[in-house]
Amino acid sequence: MQIERLAIIGVGLIGGSLARALKRAQAVGEVVGCGRNATELEKAIALGVIDHYSAEPADAVTGADMIVVATPVGAMRAVFERIAPRIASTAVITDVGSVKGSVIEVARAVLDASFPRFVPGHPIAGTERSGVSASFAELYVNHRVILTPEPETDAAAQARVRAMWEATGATVEEMPAAEHDEILAYTSHLPHMLAYALVDCLARAEPADALLRFAAGGFHDITRVASSHPVMWRDIALANREAMLKSLRLFNDSVAQITAAVERGDGEALAALFRRAKQTRDGIPRQPD
Amino acid sequence: MQIERLAIIGVGLIGGSLARALKRAQAVGEVVGCGRNATELEKAIALGVIDHYSAEPADAVTGADMIVVATPVGAMRAVFERIAPRIASTAVITDVGSVKGSVIEVARAVLDASFPRFVPGHPIAGTERSGVSASFAELYVNHRVILTPEPETDAAAQARVRAMWEATGATVEEMPAAEHDEILAYTSHLPHMLAYALVDCLARAEPADALLRFAAGGFHDITRVASSHPVMWRDIALANREAMLKSLRLFNDSVAQITAAVERGDGEALAALFRRAKQTRDGIPRQPD
Repeated sequence: MQIERLAIIGVGLIGGSLARALKRAQAVGEVVGCGRNATELEKAIALGVIDHYSAEPADAVTGADMIVVATPVGAMRAVFERIAPRIASTAVITDVGSVKGSVIEVARAVLDASFPRFVPGHPIAGTERSGVSASFAELYVNHRVILTPEPETDAAAQARVRAMWEATGATVEEMPAAEHDEILAYTSHLPHMLAYALVDCLARAEPADALLRFAAGGFHDITRVASSHPVMWRDIALANREAMLKSLRLFNDSVAQITAAVERGDGEALAALFRRAKQTRDGIPRQPD
Repeated sequence: MQIERLAIIGVGLIGGSLARALKRAQAVGEVVGCGRNATELEKAIALGVIDHYSAEPADAVTGADMIVVATPVGAMRAVFERIAPRIASTAVITDVGSVKGSVIEVARAVLDASFPRFVPGHPIAGTERSGVSASFAELYVNHRVILTPEPETDAAAQARVRAMWEATGATVEEMPAAEHDEILAYTSHLPHMLAYALVDCLARAEPADALLRFAAGGFHDITRVASSHPVMWRDIALANREAMLKSLRLFNDSVAQITAAVERGDGEALAALFRRAKQTRDGIPRQPD
């Protein structure tokens, strides 16, 4: 068995789908869940996602050879603090956070002797739904998982985390944490902020009823991700602060260009920007994610 | 036959799909196309979308009992000027522009005696694709078409345009042009501007190659509409100037709130805004559009 005892701290869409995928691949013996909501954990057992659970992270990781922290990024420090004294000396730890730099910083400060066996990771997959009932075994098939190892990261630990994700059907690649955070700021975090902003702006505009009725169309698609987990995205926005602000500023600049062109009736500038954007967009390959 | 001779000025996705739908419903006898690109018009004949064509709008509308102007909004003045002297005294004219106020203004100034038989319209349907090869007969099924009649609008003409759209499977409703333009600014025009801005910002960020590669995921969906016709959207942005600027300002305000909260690390403000937005978004009904 690739993994004897897997501890998943945070059994939601991401953690739950990982457990399901590993069970389906027969890559795991036993799965211990951990979370703050007993009803959700009971549901996870009923769904066959986990085998048993504990409300205490320290208990959940005891005896585990693989520990996956799948909570919102903002909760990871507290989890690391609880589990640090109880991590087995051969256990491998990884996380699924959408931000890597700040998670690594916390892990380095808290995990002590276990830090070399901490392999920072991020599966680029998900839907706007959350919770264990939204989880499914195929979530990671053909999706990317990015690992952002540090100089201290143990090669054997890294190989085990890679093998775990490959067992789910994902493709694993590696890059520096800073590069990951910058790329994700533009391709994922910024679009989420804008979807939230767009819906917020609609909610404040008039006539509210008619607006919501007509928002059923294209607006529905473009704002899909605004149905995402508010706390998860609050944490991401704060944890990736620098790249987030940089991308927001660059975006603001693009919006300001469009606004100024509309203001002065400059059709040429608008068409040029739209053409460039269309060309870029048409060149983006379609992939499941 | 509901329509004996239909003239479609601008045989693209919208005009082409209308012709296909009316033919399928056996609601039209003969369809005359008009456009500037002979290759596209030959293709439209080969696809069975139109029966013949003319490069000259004035010729195309001669003898037509129904005239549909389906060009980008910015080209409508020129089209109205060409066709005005040749519109039959019983012919009904309509358009498909995403902006109504400025189109009505132009029509009132140019169409003279025919203006009461001009029924301003807007089918809320489309894809990010354009051109006659993207057209299909089912585009309007269960979609909304908004008519924005003026005080002068002839009731019989309006009934004919309504019947035409109903024959395509669409649901027709009426509202004042100003209300239409405001609603569409928020639910359609603004999201298009933001998708263009988001892609533009990605194109200017670094590292460009990695960004494009990772943009294959959720970013792909949220920016889908940035593949739309640049000239069409330039025209819409300029034609709906006031509502466009108003919605851009309101949106900017939402982005500024998010940016300021990230800057000062205010998780409470972020989570509150995201929660409100999620609640609004979750309340929007799903409909084809």
